[in-house]
Amino acid sequence: IATDDSDEVKAFMMPLHAADVGDVLEVLSANDRMGLIRLLGDEFDYSALTEIDDGIRLDLMDELPNADIARGVQELDSDDAVYILEDIAGPDQAEILAALPTFERLALRRSLDFPDETAGRRMQTDFIAIPPFWTVGQTIDYMREAEDLPDDFYQIYVVDPTYNLLGTLALDRMLRAKRPDRIESIMNNNVIDVPAEEDQEEAARLFERYDLVELAVVDDSNRMVGVLTIDDIVDVIQEEANEDIKRLAGVGDEEVSDNVWDALRSRVTWLMVNLVTAVLASMVIGLFDATISQMVALAVLMPIVASMGGNAGTQAMTVTVRALSTKELDRFNIRRLITREVLVGALNGVIFALIIGLVATVWFASPLLGGVIGVAMVINMFAAGVSGILIPIALDRMNIDPAVASTAFVTTVTDVVGFFAFLWLAGLAFGLL
Amino acid sequence: IATDDSDEVKAFMMPLHAADVGDVLEVLSANDRMGLIRLLGDEFDYSALTEIDDGIRLDLMDELPNADIARGVQELDSDDAVYILEDIAGPDQAEILAALPTFERLALRRSLDFPDETAGRRMQTDFIAIPPFWTVGQTIDYMREAEDLPDDFYQIYVVDPTYNLLGTLALDRMLRAKRPDRIESIMNNNVIDVPAEEDQEEAARLFERYDLVELAVVDDSNRMVGVLTIDDIVDVIQEEANEDIKRLAGVGDEEVSDNVWDALRSRVTWLMVNLVTAVLASMVIGLFDATISQMVALAVLMPIVASMGGNAGTQAMTVTVRALSTKELDRFNIRRLITREVLVGALNGVIFALIIGLVATVWFASPLLGGVIGVAMVINMFAAGVSGILIPIALDRMNIDPAVASTAFVTTVTDVVGFFAFLWLAGLAFGLL
Repeated sequence: IATDDSDEVKAFMMPLHAADVGDVLEVLSANDRMGLIRLLGDEFDYSALTEIDDGIRLDLMDELPNADIARGVQELDSDDAVYILEDIAGPDQAEILAALPTFERLALRRSLDFPDETAGRRMQTDFIAIPPFWTVGQTIDYMREAEDLPDDFYQIYVVDPTYNLLGTLALDRMLRAKRPDRIESIMNNNVIDVPAEEDQEEAARLFERYDLVELAVVDDSNRMVGVLTIDDIVDVIQEEANEDIKRLAGVGDEEVSDNVWDALRSRVTWLMVNLVTAVLASMVIGLFDATISQMVALAVLMPIVASMGGNAGTQAMTVTVRALSTKELDRFNIRRLITREVLVGALNGVIFALIIGLVATVWFASPLLGGVIGVAMVINMFAAGVSGILIPIALDRMNIDPAVASTAFVTTVTDVVGFFAFLWLAGLAFGLL
Repeated sequence: IATDDSDEVKAFMMPLHAADVGDVLEVLSANDRMGLIRLLGDEFDYSALTEIDDGIRLDLMDELPNADIARGVQELDSDDAVYILEDIAGPDQAEILAALPTFERLALRRSLDFPDETAGRRMQTDFIAIPPFWTVGQTIDYMREAEDLPDDFYQIYVVDPTYNLLGTLALDRMLRAKRPDRIESIMNNNVIDVPAEEDQEEAARLFERYDLVELAVVDDSNRMVGVLTIDDIVDVIQEEANEDIKRLAGVGDEEVSDNVWDALRSRVTWLMVNLVTAVLASMVIGLFDATISQMVALAVLMPIVASMGGNAGTQAMTVTVRALSTKELDRFNIRRLITREVLVGALNGVIFALIIGLVATVWFASPLLGGVIGVAMVINMFAAGVSGILIPIALDRMNIDPAVASTAFVTTVTDVVGFFAFLWLAGLAFGLL
């Protein structure tokens, strides 16, 4: 790139897979990135842009002339084109769309009109649809001649004249059939489809459940408008899992490529919430300041009760949140799971009450103090189990994402209950209230 | 089932997809499950067993006669058969394998010999391999006549006489070619494969990166021994994400269907580790008991510093662990990420130092106390950022899964630093040491 040698750069870059081109782009400096794309010119495959970090792609899109982007996305499968266009700001997006041929423009605009993270937004609008009365031979001939086929496809769709989906036919099944066989006699009638407005997460669930590689997307009047392919769904599954993990830890939609400010912004909200709950817990301690001043061992031991409860609560909560988001939790097993968590909480309470009771007894030479911390531990572990399962379920019922809000509520419960139970019981036991 | 009406049950169950049969089995009581399988008899599709919870499957396997299982798995694709057999105890597994025809037995045993969670264990051993000099027509005729084809496949493999992989050919590409075309002229020469001993997570990475639906698995001498298909990989991706989430929260390989004892066992280890770190933090507080007894406000405020540090550390750590396990972190961006976390930690420290400093000043009418907690907060948030990124990276370098161990180390750092910094600074500032 430094030597501006277009031929050499092309010779090096052309054999690479789009994912590898994406990696090369990520490693380069911002200037060299533009240089590389300029040198590759028309031979730059825009699908490489779907393989790089969001931040870097947006910067590149800002710098590239809209006319070049329009030329680039025209070559792409419609789902990749939408993926690139959806993050571009309104006026630029409109300019790029205007530069496209009518047919592509309409298809892309329809996809972009569906809300973010729906099946309609993710779908690929090129697919092969044939009538049921064709033979295998006719279909194969049609595919040999058709021009605007998708880049990769694994099944063809059998539709009636109004594009109602009648069945699907996997390519391997068609290859094993004879040329004169009629499509309707070999197609799979067991049609699974997804409405375009459906959340992409639901679509991913169908793929997983039925081991699909492609899934038809239908509009309100049940007409087929596109297909989802497994490679997009793999990304959706990764994204959703990432979201759960990050939300549980109170990190927003942060990416590794985010700069200091974006990272700071994504984390400050959660720390602010945590500050409020921490101050709340401190106020509970403040209620017992007279007690503590007479017996400083309480201040030494109290974080243990709160911390153990917090961890046990996080465990129960994590299992629940994950079960909710992978839809493993349904009305058949919810009652069983609640009972289980309550029992696990109580048993953990007894186990760790005995251990910490012993530790405290020896440490401060006071069996009474050991007894107090033991009882407080049982209470808090029980509270942890109950809140760890009920809070995510309640949030889910209220249509709030349990991954976002559960941690704050659960740790507030375990902090408040932990400090209160321990300090109050100690006050009673030692007559310090 | 209650009426033992085999025909009616069959009429209801037969049209269902294996995933739905699995759901029916999960909902039934243990007795009815066996009853249903018995009623379905030879028409029970064992692939339904790959769709149910591990716990329920193991119970069923225990109860079903080995001869029935042998007959059932014989019908399955080899990857599903391995999935069912791998969890069965040694003697039973040997008995089932012995009841299979030689060819199937050898293939399954070879897969089972590969370690758990490798490409070899997950692979499907039926695939279509053809020589490069065949024509499209020959290949199609071969597929129409071959008997032992896999249930679903999306590409065929071009190999030399020693089963060295020369290229792949997607079915859609073959369908668009003409019958006399030679395979070698239309195949994809850009071969991607994975060694059988490779971790399934690595294989999943290749699928994601190159948008694959099938991937060849090769042995030590580079001969093709099987294929991985995307539906197995989707499960792997889900599993790995689940593992990360659960490990970060200190829950073992727990499933929703686990009973109280299994759940308890999977969580006790982590709570034990946490007990040790909590006691460690308490000992730090114990160092300052004289200080606290003179100024009980310190006991009230100290959990705030520790808790904020713990949360900031968890945020940095979660981002790092996730970036490590999705391989987004490499030598090109690691330095940038470390700098970012240190800066975010310092900035968060300053922001929350100001807020909590103000709160403490007003609450206890002491600007000096506000200053002390502010400085302690800056120190602990900085420690949180540094440990949140460096501890997972260090564990990863030592080949320890950072998701398992990071939380314990990071919260120990933030607890110890938080309590020590706050209490020691307060002791100095108020002359109480």
